Amino acid sequence: MSTKFPKHLKPSKPHGESLLLQERQRATFNPDDLANFIYGKKYIKKRNDILQILQNDSVLGDKSHRYYNGRHMRFRKSLDAAKRFAELQSIYQWSDEEFAVAESLFDEPSAFRLHRTMFMPTIANQGTEEQKRIYLEPALRYEIIGCYAQTELGHGSNVRGIETTAVYQPETETFVLNSPTLTASKWWIGGLGVAANHAIVMARLVSQDKDYGPHPFIVQIRSLENHEPLKGITVGDIGPKFGFNTVDNGFILFDHVHVPHIAMLARYSRIDRKTGEYIKPPNSKLAYGTMVFVRANIVLESCLVLARAATVATRYSAVRVQGSDASNPKKVTDSNGDLQQVETPVLDYTMQQYRLFPIIAQAYACHFTGQKMHHMYNENQERMSQGDFSYLADLHASSSGLKSLTTTLAVSAIEECRRACGGHGYSLFSGLGHFYQDYLPKATWEGDNYLLTQQTARYLIKTMRSVVAKREESNFSSQYLSEYLSNPRARCSFTRIEDLNNPELLLSAFKFRSAFLADKAVHALDVQKISWNDMLIDIYRISRAHCQLLLVSNFIQASFSGPSSNMKQALQQVALLFCVSTLEQELSDFLACGYLSPEQALMVKKKLVNSLKLIRPNAVALVDAFGIPDYMLNSALGENKGDVYEKMAAMAELEPLNQTKVADGYEDYIRPLIHKGKKNWKVGKDGIARL
Amino acid sequence: MSTKFPKHLKPSKPHGESLLLQERQRATFNPDDLANFIYGKKYIKKRNDILQILQNDSVLGDKSHRYYNGRHMRFRKSLDAAKRFAELQSIYQWSDEEFAVAESLFDEPSAFRLHRTMFMPTIANQGTEEQKRIYLEPALRYEIIGCYAQTELGHGSNVRGIETTAVYQPETETFVLNSPTLTASKWWIGGLGVAANHAIVMARLVSQDKDYGPHPFIVQIRSLENHEPLKGITVGDIGPKFGFNTVDNGFILFDHVHVPHIAMLARYSRIDRKTGEYIKPPNSKLAYGTMVFVRANIVLESCLVLARAATVATRYSAVRVQGSDASNPKKVTDSNGDLQQVETPVLDYTMQQYRLFPIIAQAYACHFTGQKMHHMYNENQERMSQGDFSYLADLHASSSGLKSLTTTLAVSAIEECRRACGGHGYSLFSGLGHFYQDYLPKATWEGDNYLLTQQTARYLIKTMRSVVAKREESNFSSQYLSEYLSNPRARCSFTRIEDLNNPELLLSAFKFRSAFLADKAVHALDVQKISWNDMLIDIYRISRAHCQLLLVSNFIQASFSGPSSNMKQALQQVALLFCVSTLEQELSDFLACGYLSPEQALMVKKKLVNSLKLIRPNAVALVDAFGIPDYMLNSALGENKGDVYEKMAAMAELEPLNQTKVADGYEDYIRPLIHKGKKNWKVGKDGIARL
Repeated sequence: MSTKFPKHLKPSKPHGESLLLQERQRATFNPDDLANFIYGKKYIKKRNDILQILQNDSVLGDKSHRYYNGRHMRFRKSLDAAKRFAELQSIYQWSDEEFAVAESLFDEPSAFRLHRTMFMPTIANQGTEEQKRIYLEPALRYEIIGCYAQTELGHGSNVRGIETTAVYQPETETFVLNSPTLTASKWWIGGLGVAANHAIVMARLVSQDKDYGPHPFIVQIRSLENHEPLKGITVGDIGPKFGFNTVDNGFILFDHVHVPHIAMLARYSRIDRKTGEYIKPPNSKLAYGTMVFVRANIVLESCLVLARAATVATRYSAVRVQGSDASNPKKVTDSNGDLQQVETPVLDYTMQQYRLFPIIAQAYACHFTGQKMHHMYNENQERMSQGDFSYLADLHASSSGLKSLTTTLAVSAIEECRRACGGHGYSLFSGLGHFYQDYLPKATWEGDNYLLTQQTARYLIKTMRSVVAKREESNFSSQYLSEYLSNPRARCSFTRIEDLNNPELLLSAFKFRSAFLADKAVHALDVQKISWNDMLIDIYRISRAHCQLLLVSNFIQASFSGPSSNMKQALQQVALLFCVSTLEQELSDFLACGYLSPEQALMVKKKLVNSLKLIRPNAVALVDAFGIPDYMLNSALGENKGDVYEKMAAMAELEPLNQTKVADGYEDYIRPLIHKGKKNWKVGKDGIARL
Repeated sequence: MSTKFPKHLKPSKPHGESLLLQERQRATFNPDDLANFIYGKKYIKKRNDILQILQNDSVLGDKSHRYYNGRHMRFRKSLDAAKRFAELQSIYQWSDEEFAVAESLFDEPSAFRLHRTMFMPTIANQGTEEQKRIYLEPALRYEIIGCYAQTELGHGSNVRGIETTAVYQPETETFVLNSPTLTASKWWIGGLGVAANHAIVMARLVSQDKDYGPHPFIVQIRSLENHEPLKGITVGDIGPKFGFNTVDNGFILFDHVHVPHIAMLARYSRIDRKTGEYIKPPNSKLAYGTMVFVRANIVLESCLVLARAATVATRYSAVRVQGSDASNPKKVTDSNGDLQQVETPVLDYTMQQYRLFPIIAQAYACHFTGQKMHHMYNENQERMSQGDFSYLADLHASSSGLKSLTTTLAVSAIEECRRACGGHGYSLFSGLGHFYQDYLPKATWEGDNYLLTQQTARYLIKTMRSVVAKREESNFSSQYLSEYLSNPRARCSFTRIEDLNNPELLLSAFKFRSAFLADKAVHALDVQKISWNDMLIDIYRISRAHCQLLLVSNFIQASFSGPSSNMKQALQQVALLFCVSTLEQELSDFLACGYLSPEQALMVKKKLVNSLKLIRPNAVALVDAFGIPDYMLNSALGENKGDVYEKMAAMAELEPLNQTKVADGYEDYIRPLIHKGKKNWKVGKDGIARL
């Protein structure tokens, strides 16, 4: 017998539904207009079509089991889903973009993820035509399943440090793969623990006694017949993780495993089959283009992450009432049309606004910059195909820093939104717990968020040196650096809070600060001869400053251009909030460079409170505009309808411990203690033993 | 057949053990001296005695299962442990303090936690002698198990908003407990979901048609005989949470449940049994004393939390090598006595130091302030017993803000340390994942970390008004506020980086900043008539500034007084790092109040890098001094010996998915896909099918 909540009990009034309705009525714009502006109708329709397929699918439609299962059952269910995705892919012939939309709606990483995102693309990019024919075609049909094995137990991001070797033997025409130490074990490899039967293995290529460094080899690791590991291979799952437990991250060790000559991916560099001679790759900058593309996607994805976290916390904060703000007592019209005084929705408290609204603004900021990067990526590809590489360095530098900044923002936003939901944020039913746990690795992979900033800063420092030497090419970066050099003693001009509504003034402040930091770094490195290692803290800040400037600049451009409308005005307020809250958060930089005075700093703080007030009536509409479906949120607190408490109760009813009148464990561990006191019991008229 | 790592493989050199040995040899002091200084020998012996008991216990000694189980099995094992703790308690007659040490070493919350920490203390404090006899005595023997049911589904921290009612009926001499709505359901109640058969229920007391607000009732909820819920009661577990899943947080609803007159805890206020007349409680400030005690413990505990996180990340950062710092290549002596050039331990990178060393410093800071609060608590209890309440307001205000600040620091430190461990930080084997998840609620309970700061700020603002009106009592707070008022245009005097070694200069800066913020708030509230709600962001900062000042002040006092020694000098460097890193982190405040100039701000940044260098040789010794045993850490990365990679491999071998040659799920979800490609297979001489 399972525990059920009494059906006649409803939440106390006002109900969440009426509170959200009221929020939606007071917005100054129509969220559909904003949705169309940011996504375009075509994308919205596509997302909705895919949503319908997933929601109605017998395997993928029901997410209700997700929060209760241990890893074993979660992994099984995830394999089931992965298989179903492979089938749907073949039914609907989704494009890569459509597949990505479907995966993002389903919102659970699977064992086949790296097969699609790394194994197949690597063969496609680095394999010969023959290798593509042999491996890629069956891979596309999931007749082999692959993974990408680069990271080792002893070496994460530093690929040059890997220890696995592949020694070519011309006499057998084989490479001998070997793991000389325990730390050489491949580790963290998604899909390897259970699912994959092939792997692309990065190993140090050795031929004719010379070490040519890491190269990719395609290696069968498990039997196609019965899935058992092949001879000389030790392979398994690396065990439980903080998140991502629906993926079988694995380890693998090779004990002198022979693989044929064709195993080495040979589009660029290769080994002569007979002699073992190494043939060098042609020099290519094209790989950087791909990285920009991947990172542009990460920036766009971080918009979605921020938006999703903000949606849950904002809607719940409109429904959750707590105490009352004496200066502004809250009244709502109930279903009978009566005006009723109620407790204050926590969204009315300035501190809650201060925690949440900047996150909404960050989501929009990341959207416009992600879009911009896609445009720039396309323009750069176009130019590179014509032999013009002039865009690449700037674009690569910006994309590195933006990946770091926006994923850092997104990670901290999920956790901040979870905490801003108070106690219930800690329940998995909030939908923010697993979400946080599964998103976290983004801060480490595709470039560690600290290491990446060195690339951005290095580029800016180099550009600053060029500008000083009048060798500048003219792009956004060199222009603002050069502006700064023309007047390094410039000071911010505003005198009244209202002046902070001027986007140009805000943009100038971000330009000055970033250029100041780059200039100081050049001085420290070139004049004071401070080591790069001693500069790492400053370097992190330079990248951050430059990328915040990019976000500010792109947001202002997108929202302050084109025809005006209610929607546009609302968006402009969000852009101003983004600028002012970022300014406030980084105030020490703006003060330390002397650009802002202490008096101006206090004005910025006041302006921020003022900006929060302007956003308040539109808060729910602004998250609605992202159009994140309930299917994706899987959250009792954040769903569109606002029936928070009914959902919490319904989800608690499904808890496995509630499926019996007395839970497992009682007999063994509780009863023996309680029954020791039996002599003191008195049995009442109702037959119940009491003290 | 389970997967085993090849036994002959060792990690590449230098091994973690030799790297840690080297770190320990270069320290400038003996960590035992520091351990004795902070804990005292008596405490260290006690901790060690308890550790021996736990480590050798058949139920509690083995933690190796912890990271693999789903909730069901984890909860069962935790019940087993809770029962064992009850037995050990009766064997060793541990004091409350000793029990707390044992629990902290065991490091897993249990279903009996609230029975001990809330159920019994509430009866002891608020029950009559008769109630203590009836309920407390069997509770001490675990013959009844209780919980504390205050929070409701619709109301968290705001106890005045609770909806559960207890209406007194003189004719039956019973209280009728009722949950009028769904949101009235008690929720989040630890121990209620499965274990408890009694609960202290906070309900609005209604008698003679009058609502007297929340009062505590002791209510039997499950049968002592068979543990089934009693009539009129709906009770169960609230479902999975982000952490704390070894605890059965529960919900409960009452449908007109009658409980006898004795159910109301009646030491302070009570209902006349015959008439239903309400007899008011005597006015008492004593409850505040208890809160101070609880919060002092939380501050001390946050030291342990920071120390534990820092121990794992610091030791692993000494063992983990990655790339090399060209300006400072690293050499170590290997076991053959040869000097070997190796990759750089990540602890040598300034950015890693910047992330970790301030956390070590925060741990020490929290220790000294926690100790100080215990002294002040004792002194205050002494005074209150003589009718002197003059200490109470200041102590209560500081303890509120310190609870907020130190738990916020501790939460973010665990996560920062986890991330600073790179990829392996994400493995549960790091020991930081569950640790973070289980510690998190501390930021919400015993006072939400945002709400609490209002108490601190309100007191400071009030004190500032008194000082202005020359009505000040003389204590630490009023003194520094008054100093500020005597010279609100004071400016910081340092001109060289070396000046920042002066603790008095640093202390003055923290005093000025806190007083400035309090003064501005008084002006905003009293002169500009800005509402409290619009001031909430400032209020949060005032509390933070005041409490950072307390940490700075207590740390300086503890480390710069008494006889000098190598240990003391090392500790002083940690104190200076704490001051400078906190200063740097809050730089915008110090600049915006005009106390620091932009030039001075840049000097602070340089001093910080300088401070990190001074800490570097002592980093491992500083975390060793906390003496956190491996049993508690349960971490492959952080153990004392440094055999990181061997531990990672050994723990991966225990992963359930690795216990069979082919994992569950293959037959159903992978084989059908792979075998579709059978027609393309070629079988080699080794009998293996290949593409």
